[in-house]
Amino acid sequence: MAEISILGAGGFTGKELLSLLSHQSTHEVVHITSDKLAGKTLSEVFPEIPFPKNLIFHKHEDVVPKKSLVVLAVPNEVSIESAPKFLDAGHKVIDLSGVYRLHNQETLEKAYKLKHTKFSYVEKAIFGIPEIFRDKIKGADFVSNPGCFSTSVILPVFLLNELRKNLKPRIIADSKSGVSGAGGRTEDAGFSYTGVYENFRAYKILTHQHEPEIQEYIYTNSDLKEPEVLFVPHLLPVFRGILSTIFLEFETEPTVDPMQVLLNSSKNEPFVRILKTPEDIELKKVQNTNFLDIAVRKRGNTLVVVSALDNLVKGAAGQALQNINLMTGAKETTGLLP
Amino acid sequence: MAEISILGAGGFTGKELLSLLSHQSTHEVVHITSDKLAGKTLSEVFPEIPFPKNLIFHKHEDVVPKKSLVVLAVPNEVSIESAPKFLDAGHKVIDLSGVYRLHNQETLEKAYKLKHTKFSYVEKAIFGIPEIFRDKIKGADFVSNPGCFSTSVILPVFLLNELRKNLKPRIIADSKSGVSGAGGRTEDAGFSYTGVYENFRAYKILTHQHEPEIQEYIYTNSDLKEPEVLFVPHLLPVFRGILSTIFLEFETEPTVDPMQVLLNSSKNEPFVRILKTPEDIELKKVQNTNFLDIAVRKRGNTLVVVSALDNLVKGAAGQALQNINLMTGAKETTGLLP
Amino acid sequence: MAEISILGAGGFTGKELLSLLSHQSTHEVVHITSDKLAGKTLSEVFPEIPFPKNLIFHKHEDVVPKKSLVVLAVPNEVSIESAPKFLDAGHKVIDLSGVYRLHNQETLEKAYKLKHTKFSYVEKAIFGIPEIFRDKIKGADFVSNPGCFSTSVILPVFLLNELRKNLKPRIIADSKSGVSGAGGRTEDAGFSYTGVYENFRAYKILTHQHEPEIQEYIYTNSDLKEPEVLFVPHLLPVFRGILSTIFLEFETEPTVDPMQVLLNSSKNEPFVRILKTPEDIELKKVQNTNFLDIAVRKRGNTLVVVSALDNLVKGAAGQALQNINLMTGAKETTGLLP
Amino acid sequence: MAEISILGAGGFTGKELLSLLSHQSTHEVVHITSDKLAGKTLSEVFPEIPFPKNLIFHKHEDVVPKKSLVVLAVPNEVSIESAPKFLDAGHKVIDLSGVYRLHNQETLEKAYKLKHTKFSYVEKAIFGIPEIFRDKIKGADFVSNPGCFSTSVILPVFLLNELRKNLKPRIIADSKSGVSGAGGRTEDAGFSYTGVYENFRAYKILTHQHEPEIQEYIYTNSDLKEPEVLFVPHLLPVFRGILSTIFLEFETEPTVDPMQVLLNSSKNEPFVRILKTPEDIELKKVQNTNFLDIAVRKRGNTLVVVSALDNLVKGAAGQALQNINLMTGAKETTGLLP
Repeated sequence: MAEISILGAGGFTGKELLSLLSHQSTHEVVHITSDKLAGKTLSEVFPEIPFPKNLIFHKHEDVVPKKSLVVLAVPNEVSIESAPKFLDAGHKVIDLSGVYRLHNQETLEKAYKLKHTKFSYVEKAIFGIPEIFRDKIKGADFVSNPGCFSTSVILPVFLLNELRKNLKPRIIADSKSGVSGAGGRTEDAGFSYTGVYENFRAYKILTHQHEPEIQEYIYTNSDLKEPEVLFVPHLLPVFRGILSTIFLEFETEPTVDPMQVLLNSSKNEPFVRILKTPEDIELKKVQNTNFLDIAVRKRGNTLVVVSALDNLVKGAAGQALQNINLMTGAKETTGLLP
Repeated sequence: MAEISILGAGGFTGKELLSLLSHQSTHEVVHITSDKLAGKTLSEVFPEIPFPKNLIFHKHEDVVPKKSLVVLAVPNEVSIESAPKFLDAGHKVIDLSGVYRLHNQETLEKAYKLKHTKFSYVEKAIFGIPEIFRDKIKGADFVSNPGCFSTSVILPVFLLNELRKNLKPRIIADSKSGVSGAGGRTEDAGFSYTGVYENFRAYKILTHQHEPEIQEYIYTNSDLKEPEVLFVPHLLPVFRGILSTIFLEFETEPTVDPMQVLLNSSKNEPFVRILKTPEDIELKKVQNTNFLDIAVRKRGNTLVVVSALDNLVKGAAGQALQNINLMTGAKETTGLLP
Repeated sequence: MAEISILGAGGFTGKELLSLLSHQSTHEVVHITSDKLAGKTLSEVFPEIPFPKNLIFHKHEDVVPKKSLVVLAVPNEVSIESAPKFLDAGHKVIDLSGVYRLHNQETLEKAYKLKHTKFSYVEKAIFGIPEIFRDKIKGADFVSNPGCFSTSVILPVFLLNELRKNLKPRIIADSKSGVSGAGGRTEDAGFSYTGVYENFRAYKILTHQHEPEIQEYIYTNSDLKEPEVLFVPHLLPVFRGILSTIFLEFETEPTVDPMQVLLNSSKNEPFVRILKTPEDIELKKVQNTNFLDIAVRKRGNTLVVVSALDNLVKGAAGQALQNINLMTGAKETTGLLP
Repeated sequence: MAEISILGAGGFTGKELLSLLSHQSTHEVVHITSDKLAGKTLSEVFPEIPFPKNLIFHKHEDVVPKKSLVVLAVPNEVSIESAPKFLDAGHKVIDLSGVYRLHNQETLEKAYKLKHTKFSYVEKAIFGIPEIFRDKIKGADFVSNPGCFSTSVILPVFLLNELRKNLKPRIIADSKSGVSGAGGRTEDAGFSYTGVYENFRAYKILTHQHEPEIQEYIYTNSDLKEPEVLFVPHLLPVFRGILSTIFLEFETEPTVDPMQVLLNSSKNEPFVRILKTPEDIELKKVQNTNFLDIAVRKRGNTLVVVSALDNLVKGAAGQALQNINLMTGAKETTGLLP
């Protein structure tokens, strides 16, 4: 349905998207870039991806095929410049960086520690959680793909929307991520085998760039305003997967069964699964899938929500493919479900 | 100083205590038991523990040397019967099980899913966190060694005592434990390599037996009463170590620097370390040591406290040795620090 | 092309085959069994396999759909009885157990520690390494799928056939396997997280049941006879993958470049990859693929051959699917390559 | 007994030696260096080492305390210059690098890819495997501590000395090492968590710098000459430990039981353990100990010897401490056994 160009195809996310696309024939990858890998063939670099035809890595600056949908899996600074450039040239664009998600410039620049020179384009971007913004994504030219942690926190709370009237505007999200979700590509000592194996630690406590993102989108479609979000990410000695433990407090005890609320609100969602108990949620069940698994336990005025997803799939490349499908009129599950 | 008998010396905790005691010469291990290993020598079973002399595993029912201090590292049901028996026979006893920690019989029996036939002995037991109950432990004949999770939550909050007036009586503790702390000895599928590696999950959410223990002791020496404790343990793909992320909410923003409070309240504690930031806390720094590491981050009315300990040392055998030292008049750090 | 019944679909191999088949539409799975899981649906048991339709686990003894190709992923004892039964009833059969691979009854019974009551059926079975026996497999009703270790040793040596005249009949294969290849399904202590993580050990040294299998097939299509095979398997703290280091000694130094021999002999093989150096071989490159990667280093009269494969794919379910494809006239790569 | 200066105390080996020395009071560490950590205190850098007094890291060039025994845990290039300098100044020296082990300059320079400007000092160095060279070490001023792989191969074969007359001069050693033994300190991508976890690979096949070391010392005290050594190291996804699988071929079947030979030759060795079967050998049993575990299986003319050690202890710092003890007249087991 679409011809796809992937810029930054040599990173974790780009590679994951290539892998997902190798299992379908609706979309065709026509162009991939990586400054570091330029000139090499895909099969040289990723022999484990059985791609139908052998693509060659181009330089980031090389000409991108006309009309191709452009996926940006590049650093924040590069996305700032690239997204407007491709949009203006008539491409549909999905940006996997964080720089087109937040609508407050000061917050955005502080979160990502950069100067945003194309801030006006934020207005053009649709936040790409299909379960929340499906209709807008269908007509969109520009989708800003959400953060992996953000998806794991925002979507479960959204699906509990029915209960929100009563909710105190203070949300605690204690998230645990594998190395690939915590930015483990960079070769610093913190991500060496010696630094990660048999170890566990929190990082960027109350200072992670996904916290304002959760804050902005967590009460979408509800009357609640200005939530206080306490977000604490941790680094797991695993490669892929995020599990979030979310604590919600209500003014009075909810009278509706929250598990029933989840079942109702997700019943037409192909990629949301409500498991029987929150103890059933585990990374193993979502790794290498586009599923978000959720369950909840209630005690008095409090809910403990547990969610899990694969940060490289539903948290990045899989959700991007879901968005590609919606933007191009393909079946939403193409390449993600048989 | 003391002759020590370890009952249940073949389990994780018993082995850890043997290992710690092999590095000192103040106390002497005179008797070890394990019904499963009875008849075997220590060096056959644990060749990696370089013990000065070769002990033989006895049966649990064999006669225990007179006057020896008895350490019970046995199942809950066995401790119920054994602790009173040895106390009545004039032994000093340290019990590592959970059945002499809670002062409400109904809560206790529900938490441990058993009938407690010797409940009156709970009154005789001192809860063995030395940093809180040091003076009582010194004179005690019977110490109930605390749970590993409990220590990781109660002790950090205790050290913040100065701030408590203002504290809301609702504490969220999100804890993550290695396999040995989560009861990984049992050979069920949940603890197979396949079940644990590259995986992560919560378990016993709001139903763990350490939750009432935290509830009973968390406000020791403070005016606060009846706290609501929300305790969620998780299973990490590591062998040893617990990291707890604790969320405290205050009525108004604390005016004292919580890091300073920690530094003051722990300044004479040999086994408490206050690190510079909560991001510095990690399992690697406490594994195989008796240290509890703590740091805290404040935002407005909220504190995020992060603590870490080795569940087999400060969370079990190391704390037991600390208690042995106190009960017998030895130097508190014997076998734990050079 | 084929309707497939998988007996023993709840184990590692059965699950892997289901997973592979869920990505293609040429073959249809019509029947799955597992005595332990009987009555449950596939999506309950394996939520991570996105199967097109929801199958139900039957009991092993339930009637198998007529004309379906039967895959036996059951214990050795069950295969002995089942394979003949289904063959006699007119089914095509692929047996994943080890009991139809060896042509010497005494060796077979000793290797598998059982009495073989249907030994005559061994004659009917084709040893299912397609790269060696492709033509025979195409016409076969009964394929005995090879062992995972065996494939990793036999196939590399077969591809070096051109050099064999000179080869000394003594082969050392030092193999290292993840838990799933070493039989890690059984819940014994040796496969607990505590027993495997941060550990490494050899097992069944010179006594593994795959040693006689390597011995029988390693010189296929060559003049060499009665090789002495020294096979030492080891258990890696990983889940999937086998790497074999194979030492070959020649009477005189080979004059032909062994890497060139490999390139020539594998040039039409879709699932054999010759990497540039043996240091390039690693588990990561073959995990979740049906590839066997090989490279070799020569020094004087000696070759060190390094091979890697995924024991659950090329070492079991993937090779079985390759054989299904050949037996049913489908394209050999169906379900295995795009 | 000795005052010890450790140069390069910030690396894996230096840290391990500090850790071992913190458990004894015979020797005193008086000086530690690390150019990278200069100015920091030991307890800042390694809070997990409970050292009696707080040392400060000096620069490598700072003055070393007079008469102190100098341990060099520095890069090869630094050892070349430093060892002669300290020897000439009257210090006893233990060098942990590889540059004073080989007696053929060409081989040495090729193995370590450097120019050796102080080659004459090789003659002054005693190769520090105490079980082989104990008497020489006792009187030595200069000990070259052996490589970790080398120890795991040379020592087991030495202990089989009685069988050697008949041995073919061709030894295959297939070794598997954890990250810390394979040089995992360097922060290259090959040692990132992503590169190591769930992975396994061979490296430096027949080209590792320990191969000529094994070749030089493997037939010590035997009549055999010029052995052909085939050494293949592999990288395990573990932190510490080396297991070597060694294949020995004899002209005729040995008539003496090799296990009995091992038991006899090691009976006075405090750090060699002969386990019952080679399947009993595992990393877990030797990690954090100075033991070398060995066992052997015979079939016809062939022996498969399996050995295991902790590369940081018996393979480096532990063996260095054993040598310190011998050189200074302390009990050989000081700091290593109770």
